[in-house]
Amino acid sequence: MISAQEFIARQDRLLAQCKPNSVCIVPAAGMVTRSRDTEYTFRQDSDFWYLTGFEEPNAWLILSNHPRYGESYRAMVVQEKDKSAEIWHGKRLGAEAALARFSLDEAFELQELEEALLASIQGQDNVYFSLGHKKDNDLLFTEALNTLRDAPKESLAPRAIHDLQPILHEMRLFKSACEVAMMKAAGEISARAHKRAMQFAAPGCYEYQLEAEIHHEFAMAGARSPAYSTIVGSGDNACILHYTQNNAQVNDGDLILIDAGAEYQGYAADITRTFPANGKFSHAQREIYTVVLKAQKSVLDMLAPGVTLSQAMLHSVEIITQGLVDLGVLEGSVAENLENETWRQFYMHGLGHYLGLDVHDVGNYKIDGEDRPLKPGMVITVEPGIYISQDSNVPEKYKGIGVRIEDDVVITATGVDILTADVPKDIDEIEALMAESRA
Amino acid sequence: MISAQEFIARQDRLLAQCKPNSVCIVPAAGMVTRSRDTEYTFRQDSDFWYLTGFEEPNAWLILSNHPRYGESYRAMVVQEKDKSAEIWHGKRLGAEAALARFSLDEAFELQELEEALLASIQGQDNVYFSLGHKKDNDLLFTEALNTLRDAPKESLAPRAIHDLQPILHEMRLFKSACEVAMMKAAGEISARAHKRAMQFAAPGCYEYQLEAEIHHEFAMAGARSPAYSTIVGSGDNACILHYTQNNAQVNDGDLILIDAGAEYQGYAADITRTFPANGKFSHAQREIYTVVLKAQKSVLDMLAPGVTLSQAMLHSVEIITQGLVDLGVLEGSVAENLENETWRQFYMHGLGHYLGLDVHDVGNYKIDGEDRPLKPGMVITVEPGIYISQDSNVPEKYKGIGVRIEDDVVITATGVDILTADVPKDIDEIEALMAESRA
Amino acid sequence: MISAQEFIARQDRLLAQCKPNSVCIVPAAGMVTRSRDTEYTFRQDSDFWYLTGFEEPNAWLILSNHPRYGESYRAMVVQEKDKSAEIWHGKRLGAEAALARFSLDEAFELQELEEALLASIQGQDNVYFSLGHKKDNDLLFTEALNTLRDAPKESLAPRAIHDLQPILHEMRLFKSACEVAMMKAAGEISARAHKRAMQFAAPGCYEYQLEAEIHHEFAMAGARSPAYSTIVGSGDNACILHYTQNNAQVNDGDLILIDAGAEYQGYAADITRTFPANGKFSHAQREIYTVVLKAQKSVLDMLAPGVTLSQAMLHSVEIITQGLVDLGVLEGSVAENLENETWRQFYMHGLGHYLGLDVHDVGNYKIDGEDRPLKPGMVITVEPGIYISQDSNVPEKYKGIGVRIEDDVVITATGVDILTADVPKDIDEIEALMAESRA
Amino acid sequence: MISAQEFIARQDRLLAQCKPNSVCIVPAAGMVTRSRDTEYTFRQDSDFWYLTGFEEPNAWLILSNHPRYGESYRAMVVQEKDKSAEIWHGKRLGAEAALARFSLDEAFELQELEEALLASIQGQDNVYFSLGHKKDNDLLFTEALNTLRDAPKESLAPRAIHDLQPILHEMRLFKSACEVAMMKAAGEISARAHKRAMQFAAPGCYEYQLEAEIHHEFAMAGARSPAYSTIVGSGDNACILHYTQNNAQVNDGDLILIDAGAEYQGYAADITRTFPANGKFSHAQREIYTVVLKAQKSVLDMLAPGVTLSQAMLHSVEIITQGLVDLGVLEGSVAENLENETWRQFYMHGLGHYLGLDVHDVGNYKIDGEDRPLKPGMVITVEPGIYISQDSNVPEKYKGIGVRIEDDVVITATGVDILTADVPKDIDEIEALMAESRA
Repeated sequence: MISAQEFIARQDRLLAQCKPNSVCIVPAAGMVTRSRDTEYTFRQDSDFWYLTGFEEPNAWLILSNHPRYGESYRAMVVQEKDKSAEIWHGKRLGAEAALARFSLDEAFELQELEEALLASIQGQDNVYFSLGHKKDNDLLFTEALNTLRDAPKESLAPRAIHDLQPILHEMRLFKSACEVAMMKAAGEISARAHKRAMQFAAPGCYEYQLEAEIHHEFAMAGARSPAYSTIVGSGDNACILHYTQNNAQVNDGDLILIDAGAEYQGYAADITRTFPANGKFSHAQREIYTVVLKAQKSVLDMLAPGVTLSQAMLHSVEIITQGLVDLGVLEGSVAENLENETWRQFYMHGLGHYLGLDVHDVGNYKIDGEDRPLKPGMVITVEPGIYISQDSNVPEKYKGIGVRIEDDVVITATGVDILTADVPKDIDEIEALMAESRA
Repeated sequence: MISAQEFIARQDRLLAQCKPNSVCIVPAAGMVTRSRDTEYTFRQDSDFWYLTGFEEPNAWLILSNHPRYGESYRAMVVQEKDKSAEIWHGKRLGAEAALARFSLDEAFELQELEEALLASIQGQDNVYFSLGHKKDNDLLFTEALNTLRDAPKESLAPRAIHDLQPILHEMRLFKSACEVAMMKAAGEISARAHKRAMQFAAPGCYEYQLEAEIHHEFAMAGARSPAYSTIVGSGDNACILHYTQNNAQVNDGDLILIDAGAEYQGYAADITRTFPANGKFSHAQREIYTVVLKAQKSVLDMLAPGVTLSQAMLHSVEIITQGLVDLGVLEGSVAENLENETWRQFYMHGLGHYLGLDVHDVGNYKIDGEDRPLKPGMVITVEPGIYISQDSNVPEKYKGIGVRIEDDVVITATGVDILTADVPKDIDEIEALMAESRA
Repeated sequence: MISAQEFIARQDRLLAQCKPNSVCIVPAAGMVTRSRDTEYTFRQDSDFWYLTGFEEPNAWLILSNHPRYGESYRAMVVQEKDKSAEIWHGKRLGAEAALARFSLDEAFELQELEEALLASIQGQDNVYFSLGHKKDNDLLFTEALNTLRDAPKESLAPRAIHDLQPILHEMRLFKSACEVAMMKAAGEISARAHKRAMQFAAPGCYEYQLEAEIHHEFAMAGARSPAYSTIVGSGDNACILHYTQNNAQVNDGDLILIDAGAEYQGYAADITRTFPANGKFSHAQREIYTVVLKAQKSVLDMLAPGVTLSQAMLHSVEIITQGLVDLGVLEGSVAENLENETWRQFYMHGLGHYLGLDVHDVGNYKIDGEDRPLKPGMVITVEPGIYISQDSNVPEKYKGIGVRIEDDVVITATGVDILTADVPKDIDEIEALMAESRA
Repeated sequence: MISAQEFIARQDRLLAQCKPNSVCIVPAAGMVTRSRDTEYTFRQDSDFWYLTGFEEPNAWLILSNHPRYGESYRAMVVQEKDKSAEIWHGKRLGAEAALARFSLDEAFELQELEEALLASIQGQDNVYFSLGHKKDNDLLFTEALNTLRDAPKESLAPRAIHDLQPILHEMRLFKSACEVAMMKAAGEISARAHKRAMQFAAPGCYEYQLEAEIHHEFAMAGARSPAYSTIVGSGDNACILHYTQNNAQVNDGDLILIDAGAEYQGYAADITRTFPANGKFSHAQREIYTVVLKAQKSVLDMLAPGVTLSQAMLHSVEIITQGLVDLGVLEGSVAENLENETWRQFYMHGLGHYLGLDVHDVGNYKIDGEDRPLKPGMVITVEPGIYISQDSNVPEKYKGIGVRIEDDVVITATGVDILTADVPKDIDEIEALMAESRA
């Protein structure tokens, strides 16, 4: 659990980066209808969660560094206490309890939202708000501005609206020790789940049953939702990058690609493993797998502060191209294939991405158009892959093989720390683990 | 699985209830964002699913009985085939394959939506559409109408927009044999899950772990989502009717109330059971439980065609009031308590509701203001309860006891068929089942 | 002035055409911003005006034939009396006075709009409303429907929304004696204005000054706004059909085309005259003008009940084509030119249109795809024209000549009554009138 | 006419006040529907007009000071040339001609709007835009931002949105010599119109006929629309501040209050005069009038750089209160009445307002909450008034008297220059002018 102190420290760091006489407005997420009167499981807005750790919908965080408030100003608008609503739908914190829990200067009920916005925005020079993020919030915000502009003698509206996201997302890009610990926990839960799926898998089972094993392992550890839709692709389905139908029966001889990660305390893990349904890699599977694994390990070795993701991507491309040329999947020399980018037909995605409260986490990959060097505290995925669909023009034995191997790493002072190392990826280890459950 | 024939028969029955020269427009659901670029698991719109069984988002069904089309007209607008989109996000059916699968007269790609709407609506006298259901669809629909109204010499727009829902929802209210079979399957899966949770439960476990057991059992059977947010309330949490936080640790001596149902082939089950965390009901728990169980069984016995839900509700109220008076929870005579509705502080919800593709399923409960008698083919829940929160003014021993017992039944020619009978509700049976797993 | 009785009779005729158990909802227009805090002169919605003659914005008319109200139900929602608003912006009728003035069963203040809509719509089978006409009203209406649909046990929302416009617009198409009298008055005012412009015109004056003369004559008679943007096109500008810039200086030798009509008591006149700036038609101008005049008069002679506008259009096309062939503007035989529709380069608009509360008045021109015969009480314009722009490939002398001659007629039992006969169109008469003012 | 150079100089002054690496986005106004397919006379958006003098709807001005463009960047998006649209609705400038006329770096057609916005906004640090001014433009703008934010590796969206209005409106507050000349012309046209109305007025005429005289005089001078809805209030109607019904017949003995101003080249005049319908002030009318006139003249004498509008207002209040006490309209001492603000029942509006492209022109009246001193180049109205409605508790003879006297002045280095001095306001002069026309 992130401590109350850390949330306040984040708020302070945000305010310190705002111009003087500024107010930040950060709305929480709302409930989302699934069908008729049922709703999806609530997912808090990542930015709001990052700043508050508050799990209720429909709240608003208001921060200001305006001198009229003294050092700083913290306020929150929260759903009102309501006995009937709480008997039906669950307890609410309420404004009074929010004051203490979040060390607020003021707390308002939702029905006071308009007044709270007007009071905090008026007379400010700057407002930081994620305009364009959600239409309903944009409308509420713009109406408040217009009300302030129409003040009879002098507009009381801030003259500049700054995008909150660039500042906040740069903060979110660098994980604190406590965040890394959360992500490590997410990685461990996810690793256990992948191992369990490997042990459960067998010809004849259904892809959704492997998903069920994974989700159960997540949920038993308190990770009630996956961080993203779980991918379980057997056989040719592994060649659909974000395959989530998961309704096919697994055949003997298939490879199974599982891309799944728990969401723990809001933080995502993101692991992919590929393994044989029957517990034994075929020769051709082994060949392709070995190329991907070599690329993945080699990239993990090179990652360190100062390296860029583009350099790492290029490195993985070189290894994979060499491997595909060696296997006769690509014709011609490695150099030619690199120049003509022929590898793109089999490795059509990037090497990895930022990871954090979102699986494709926030933060710019370039600064002023230049690739940005990695720095300690960044968490990224490393996930090279080779996907050879049935309609490819390659030797028959390689058709229908899709392999991706993905781990999550935090950049350290000298290299990386792998958050998801608990789940095997060497062929021997995988086969051993799977044999165990078959004994 | 519902057969293709049944879907077509439903479409035909819908068209037969439309006025002559009519077109029906039924949009599918769209994808819903969860956070940043991740989405919730897709849930099809119930009405669209009822008519098509088609699992893709963003489609539109168009039906017409206009003589210009001969007997009838069936068309669908579907997402276009797109190689890159399909490598990334999964296979799509496409217009061509839709023609055959759904026995359509015409199939269009999504980019042709506007033209397809215009062509099918123009010159019709009536259009059946669920106006007001979703703003984006309303806009598309209204724009099509306005285009037709602006035809230079004569408006080609239908003059009447009929609400599709009353007709369709009356159809959905009466389940076919095949639908009852699906719902029976949903009930059986859900019953297994409840039994497993009873066996897993023990002091010290977490509510979310019981949820995990339930969901795993659902998912292993192919029911990848619950029909509604699962409720696992231990101790006082059982008194929050739609408690879904599920994050408390279970104490010895607690009752645990679980309200959970699988969504199978689109159909919901909805079961509630209440049982002791440690496997043995205390005396006070047993007293309250017995009252609720008596009410539930007695209602199940009386239900039959011709009975109304209000009559059944009244019956359950009488039994529960008698029970609470007998136990000293309510003071005064049964007659007085019935007249003053004092029972409402402990039994604050209705007896049950329609069940089908939605957990709170569609269909009117009254016709012309009069209670509607039950008829064969209706599926309803029967779920009396007693909830005595800690702040109630009752004998100490009853505080913190919340009990609900819920089964799903289909009305038959002579009574009811219970779809969820597999999970025990008698005290002896529950205690026996729980003892088994503790052996 | 239309009498209060006539408005009520119109409401009754509307209700009589609605299905049983229906409510009609007719919103008035709102104020429209011109710039910052200034507004355009208010123009009432034509449909609302037709049914009420009420000149205030933001009102709603509600009519019902539901038996629960007895014979019929009339209600109106109007702006509330408000002392401060009335000191600043003018007197308001208010709900109490509206009751008497409009013989209402109930009158509501604007702040009660939502309740009034709900109460009148609920329990109806049908609602007649111009959905799609104005977004704000659509939203209010749809929200009311959704509220009624969500009634806990039985939807209270009407199941059919009928378009009000087809019924109402068919009514508006046939003018009562009183309406014809209003339109005759509008025609007379407009005729005076055209005569005044002819007398004022002279080389060197500006087009906008001719507009000023026209508008002044309108306004002195109480027609404070023209029915449409006044067109004053001199020289080549006459070849722009809806030229409204009106900022050129008039040259000696120019023809001037003026298309202008008063809006009197809500009713439009629509007159076009073309005349020489210097008071004398040149030979070439006279040639072209004579062809148009012949066509216009010939059409006026043929119009009568049973004739269609298409027949009249064809007749005008034949005369104009013959004329243009005779003058050498078109080459080849008349028959060839008719077949190839070459006349369309010089006569590019239709012969005329319905006229009433709107200048392009409502009503279908076809019924079931067939041209509709004229009937007594219809008011139409007759406005053939020839426009030969500078870049046409014709004899030099005809370039820059644009002629349109337009009168308004009501169809009578035997032919037509010309509402705008007071303004001369014969060449001699025009030249005589213009000479008079030059004397 | 404002010169092309002045428009460019304004653009340059705007850009010079923007932060480095900024783009300004300024949309023009659109057409506004009046009824069915007719539109109100187009009124350009004041801000867009101030920067361009371009009279077409639907255009967008784009300015940037980003170094990538060199010195500066000027672009415009304009309606495309379209032969058919231009034959029907009038000539358009088109992109090519816009280049030259506005000295643009680039010109785009309206269909390229999205691309033009994206290209000019991307990579900027700041964008100046009047967010919240018009919903349609807000949506286009926000969509462009979101597209840029979604750039795959690095957001290309500006991080700050500055309100364009405070800068632009401060510029508009100070009129250039050329603007003062335009406003002087507007004042002279309006003065002639008021004189003509005085001469036309007589018992028995209608208020709207006086309006007609006024508007005709405006329009003959090329001012085709008034700057605001003309107020002609006779008798008690003069006590409705923004009375615009103008449909009463004028009675002998009435005072007539006319508040009307021409809009010339976009600039507003704003004159009020009050005079007797029969040409002779009654004794009581003369008494009240004299008080207002004294206040108005005395304020005109005191206005100069450094004076605030609040000081001037106070001065007018003192004179009016003294006058009302002297006449017995107010009871008690002047000091008491000032303290209790009893004068507010008869003088309920402010002394005046800024005047320019808008009649209530833009610009703050306070800076940091403090009244702002007048400075040379500001144009304001001076319009004290006394309104004694029939239901006031005052001596009978004063009831139904409403008087306002309003002139427009530009602040000069030493005092004011009155732009509307041509229309008489002394009682003798008014009576003499009116007598002249009656001779």
